[in-house]
Amino acid sequence: MRRIIAATLAIALAPPLAAADEGMWTFDAFPKEKLHRAHGFAPTDAWLEHARLSSVRLAGGCSGSFVSPNGLVMTNHHCAQECIQGLSTAEKDLFANGFTAPTQADELRCPDVEVNQLVAIADVTARIRKATAGLSGEAFQKALDAETARIESACQTSADLLCQVVRLYRGGVYDLYTYRRYQDVRLVFAPEFRIAFFGGDPDNFEFPRYDLDVSFLRVYQDGKPAATKDHFGWSPGGPKEGELVFVSGNPGETKRLLTVAQLADERDAALPETLIRFAETRGLLLGYQLLGAEAKRTSMELLFTYENAFKARTGEWDALRQPAFFESLVRRERDLRAKLARAKDGKRYLAAYDAIAKAQVRKRALRVQRLYVDTASRHESRPAAFPGELFFRARTIVRGAAERAKPNDQRLPEFSEASLPALVQTLLSPAPIYPDVERVRLAHGLGKLREMLGPDHPVVRKVLGKESPAEIAARAVSGTKLFDPAFRKSLWEGGAAAVDASDDPMIALARLVDPDARAIRRQWESEVEAVEKKNAEILAEGRFAVEGRSTYPDATFTPRLSYGVVKGWKQGDRSIPPFTRLAGAYERATGKDPFQLPESWIRAKDRLDLETPMNFVTTNDIVGGNSGSPVFDREGRIVGLVFDGNRLSLGGDFGFDETVNRTVAVDSAALIEALSKVYGASRIVEELAPAQPARAR
Amino acid sequence: MRRIIAATLAIALAPPLAAADEGMWTFDAFPKEKLHRAHGFAPTDAWLEHARLSSVRLAGGCSGSFVSPNGLVMTNHHCAQECIQGLSTAEKDLFANGFTAPTQADELRCPDVEVNQLVAIADVTARIRKATAGLSGEAFQKALDAETARIESACQTSADLLCQVVRLYRGGVYDLYTYRRYQDVRLVFAPEFRIAFFGGDPDNFEFPRYDLDVSFLRVYQDGKPAATKDHFGWSPGGPKEGELVFVSGNPGETKRLLTVAQLADERDAALPETLIRFAETRGLLLGYQLLGAEAKRTSMELLFTYENAFKARTGEWDALRQPAFFESLVRRERDLRAKLARAKDGKRYLAAYDAIAKAQVRKRALRVQRLYVDTASRHESRPAAFPGELFFRARTIVRGAAERAKPNDQRLPEFSEASLPALVQTLLSPAPIYPDVERVRLAHGLGKLREMLGPDHPVVRKVLGKESPAEIAARAVSGTKLFDPAFRKSLWEGGAAAVDASDDPMIALARLVDPDARAIRRQWESEVEAVEKKNAEILAEGRFAVEGRSTYPDATFTPRLSYGVVKGWKQGDRSIPPFTRLAGAYERATGKDPFQLPESWIRAKDRLDLETPMNFVTTNDIVGGNSGSPVFDREGRIVGLVFDGNRLSLGGDFGFDETVNRTVAVDSAALIEALSKVYGASRIVEELAPAQPARAR
Repeated sequence: MRRIIAATLAIALAPPLAAADEGMWTFDAFPKEKLHRAHGFAPTDAWLEHARLSSVRLAGGCSGSFVSPNGLVMTNHHCAQECIQGLSTAEKDLFANGFTAPTQADELRCPDVEVNQLVAIADVTARIRKATAGLSGEAFQKALDAETARIESACQTSADLLCQVVRLYRGGVYDLYTYRRYQDVRLVFAPEFRIAFFGGDPDNFEFPRYDLDVSFLRVYQDGKPAATKDHFGWSPGGPKEGELVFVSGNPGETKRLLTVAQLADERDAALPETLIRFAETRGLLLGYQLLGAEAKRTSMELLFTYENAFKARTGEWDALRQPAFFESLVRRERDLRAKLARAKDGKRYLAAYDAIAKAQVRKRALRVQRLYVDTASRHESRPAAFPGELFFRARTIVRGAAERAKPNDQRLPEFSEASLPALVQTLLSPAPIYPDVERVRLAHGLGKLREMLGPDHPVVRKVLGKESPAEIAARAVSGTKLFDPAFRKSLWEGGAAAVDASDDPMIALARLVDPDARAIRRQWESEVEAVEKKNAEILAEGRFAVEGRSTYPDATFTPRLSYGVVKGWKQGDRSIPPFTRLAGAYERATGKDPFQLPESWIRAKDRLDLETPMNFVTTNDIVGGNSGSPVFDREGRIVGLVFDGNRLSLGGDFGFDETVNRTVAVDSAALIEALSKVYGASRIVEELAPAQPARAR
Repeated sequence: MRRIIAATLAIALAPPLAAADEGMWTFDAFPKEKLHRAHGFAPTDAWLEHARLSSVRLAGGCSGSFVSPNGLVMTNHHCAQECIQGLSTAEKDLFANGFTAPTQADELRCPDVEVNQLVAIADVTARIRKATAGLSGEAFQKALDAETARIESACQTSADLLCQVVRLYRGGVYDLYTYRRYQDVRLVFAPEFRIAFFGGDPDNFEFPRYDLDVSFLRVYQDGKPAATKDHFGWSPGGPKEGELVFVSGNPGETKRLLTVAQLADERDAALPETLIRFAETRGLLLGYQLLGAEAKRTSMELLFTYENAFKARTGEWDALRQPAFFESLVRRERDLRAKLARAKDGKRYLAAYDAIAKAQVRKRALRVQRLYVDTASRHESRPAAFPGELFFRARTIVRGAAERAKPNDQRLPEFSEASLPALVQTLLSPAPIYPDVERVRLAHGLGKLREMLGPDHPVVRKVLGKESPAEIAARAVSGTKLFDPAFRKSLWEGGAAAVDASDDPMIALARLVDPDARAIRRQWESEVEAVEKKNAEILAEGRFAVEGRSTYPDATFTPRLSYGVVKGWKQGDRSIPPFTRLAGAYERATGKDPFQLPESWIRAKDRLDLETPMNFVTTNDIVGGNSGSPVFDREGRIVGLVFDGNRLSLGGDFGFDETVNRTVAVDSAALIEALSKVYGASRIVEELAPAQPARAR
């Protein structure tokens, strides 16, 4: 497998500019003419606006779409799994057994899901530039954060809105994105885990594939289904081979505009070190699951998260390790450097490269401390040394008490007024927290803290004292009241006084380490991030100067639109056709996990049209974060549901290769077939309102 | 920590030739004059022969020394841990509680330890060259193996001898090493694991240090203690700071003569991929140990092995990842290339570099299959996909039946007549095998097989069929009779007929995969190893031609002698003094593992002279495999016992930096103090026969 990636990427990844159907375009700068030239279809502004308003972001890291006028949202099973797991108990395991709400009244509120719909885009580049002019290092970072907070705060006129200043082209453009925010989100339908993730980790990021990775949620307003005028239609027959299709969604992060120095750090340090960390935690969870069925149930979603991330990062690493691919990135930079050198202000641009290269040395020196003592963002809510749901909440309470006492523009960004609603929802989520899993993870994390920093590091001495990691974890988990959302609420509302007075052992642990964590974060931000950001802005400026603004920005977990066609690919000598059929799932089943079909599917086999297309692939340019994205046709009808990319697409973090990168989706025909004949979910099928008869393919 | 490695290595590792006290010298080419110039001491040939005959190799991967005329061997606790664990039961846990044989009759035979003493060295380079002249690829490999087998076989006149053709200077020289072989080896003394490995993984490869990592074994002949005329004396006072000291032992493997292409593969693929693999297994074992005390006891040694290897490989990887260090290796090769290019036959030498570089591409392509389907050597007796004691023995039986039917010079090398005694000892070892550990490991390994090759790979389909990895492992482990050494013996002696007729499920599993395993091994050997070997010989020839033979060969787990001085080092601004004292162990103790002192030490505290030196460091050039090596003075008296290197020494695989690389040893004074006052082991103390009064320091 890997060799094939090597050869193909190497040949195909040379072009420095967006070629073919490449691109994760912002809705306000979609390449209409280019699309028209390539595919004979030019979307109107109204078409684009409708697509944007019909698409949503799941704040936890996914995408989705409105598929009815009554707030019905389609996304992946794996995007709703925290909700499904949070609603499950040992007696009623929705994760294993699936869920269909027979009536609207039966729809279950998710403990912690936020849905965002992008309603406005405004350019604020000039304001940001003015605020940070002439600054660097910590001063640059502070000014940037403060101006961002001021812009967001002025926009944020109600809790129903989410205003975010978005950094595009690595700082070439700053936009203010205004989202409508939905926090009352309910579970309508989820299939069994076994069919949602049929083939499990072995088939993850592979194709041919046979997954029904879908869930339906519904957004509510004032206790009633929200009215969603803008929504996609439905194509019951799915797409045809070669058909032009669109994917809208929120690709999480690409690194296509990074410098070679940054990419080398990814290849030589960040990615392999991450993989080593993930591998150990994965092993720990596999070992933990030997304790029995309940241990398995309560750690399954977590294991899935690690395995998925492990395989994804492996694919990215493998791509960067292909010498020919990496050399193509080096060449691309060399060419750009040459152009920049000839430009007005050329020296300034070249100096920016050097500054970024220097920052990589600091990065390597600080990374271990930063990872093990501090964590900077929501997505690292499970940091390396202090993992777990409890510690994350303890830190949020401790740090939040201090931050909320400050003016909005002086806070850490995750505690700004704009950010608080999502943070509070997570903080107070009633989803169950499993003490044994927490204890095992925290003990392991504290052991890693000692391992990575050494037993004589001041932070290690302070945290561990004369106790063992296992003892501290056991004491903190068994003694804490943070399992109780009401207790968290009282501390959160009590602010600094309540936090200072608390003798809760998990709060005490978070309090103990917070000064050190803040210190390393500050150092990291000023010596690494600020340098990278500041100089990336200069490079972005240079790139605009010499190449214009004809291309798309790196992905930043903001709404994007891509186009492509339904198309297989060649893997070595083998042609991979674009569609699989329902029959294939039955053929692949072994009766043993992860190749075990759920009972419902075994019973339904005779009722199903086994020739129905199940999954398909397209040439759309996507990455992680696009999970749950709709695939739709030029008439705005859903033909599929993105749930994966093929393994070769994992190099897409760094560059797109249309010959082998593929988006993997569930066919809309399979969705209707399964909802109707396996799950008897006629209520949903009717709401999707199939408008057209099935088309022949 | 890492940053310091970076800076220091970078500066110090430039010199391409052996400088200062660097070098792991063969006993027949020891640099007497160089030593005399540097330290004013020139050993005689008799001195060297005595040192060689007083030193031993433990076939499992360690070093040791004769320390009495009656076969008493001193080595590390961690070198005897398989023996100690093998003699332990849940009721009588020698590993945790230690062991002192009150009389010679109480000494316990180790299940699987072989001790080798090097008695003769003969040059066979010409014979090998003649046999392989003009050959390459598989033919080269076969001719090399066959001639090796013929030479060894002719030498191998009794089972008490072990004849090995040894490849030095990466093929520049082939020597025939004749060892006396001892297989009746008994445990005399071992301290508790807690003091042998005080500080555990966190303190491993670190200094200051407080370990009593010692054990005493005794070699027997005909049921009686062997007479060992050549043995070291004893210095009860230990060494002085600055004193010249020697270390003899068997450094396992260094890669100082590899090409840059090979080193890049180590840095970019072999090492990080190994770390990822080890990390997951380590996590699995940590999780497994949550099952309880017996799970912990039965997997402790295994976990220790993985953690030790993990930290060692991490240090090696970190060294290679220091850009300045790697650049120094690149420069070194560039300089040598330039010299070779000017030499007669220059083109041939340069072509060898290219051939080796090309072999790295094949290496990357084949490595995963080779690791997961086959295993090539004793040291990978725990291969990635088929781990465990049972499968290793099943494969040995299955493959051995086929190989032993062939003439000696056509067998796989590990089944040659010379190799069989050690292999059979391991095969038939009565050490207990723990079914639960076996089951968990095998299930995990089979899962990795599927993960790494993909569920549709022919070998995966063949091995797994419709079963899950856990089911196959459970079936094979619960159904096999291989736990019983007598059963293994009957199959081994029954040969191919017995193997073919067996319905033992573990034998069946090994039989099933053997053709595929052999095929990938053959491919690996002919397309990777043979190319590397053949061309390394050419490069060695070139190096001798342009630089003469003034340096030492890469380590190959054969007896070597190094010299150095007792000396601390500077770590950044900090000076690390060369000695620790017994008092330090008590200060460092927290009462919690791994910083918990055993009861015996707590009780003995008042009796001990706490100022006694406990551990010390020297500038000797060692690597893994030197564990258990004696540190001795110019009069041939033991002053210490090597058990570790500092973390900075892990880069020693690739180059030696005298400013920071340090050997870590137990002081002979601490050994006497502990044996006498903690363990009341007067029988051993008297046998060590301290000849001199303690010296003032």
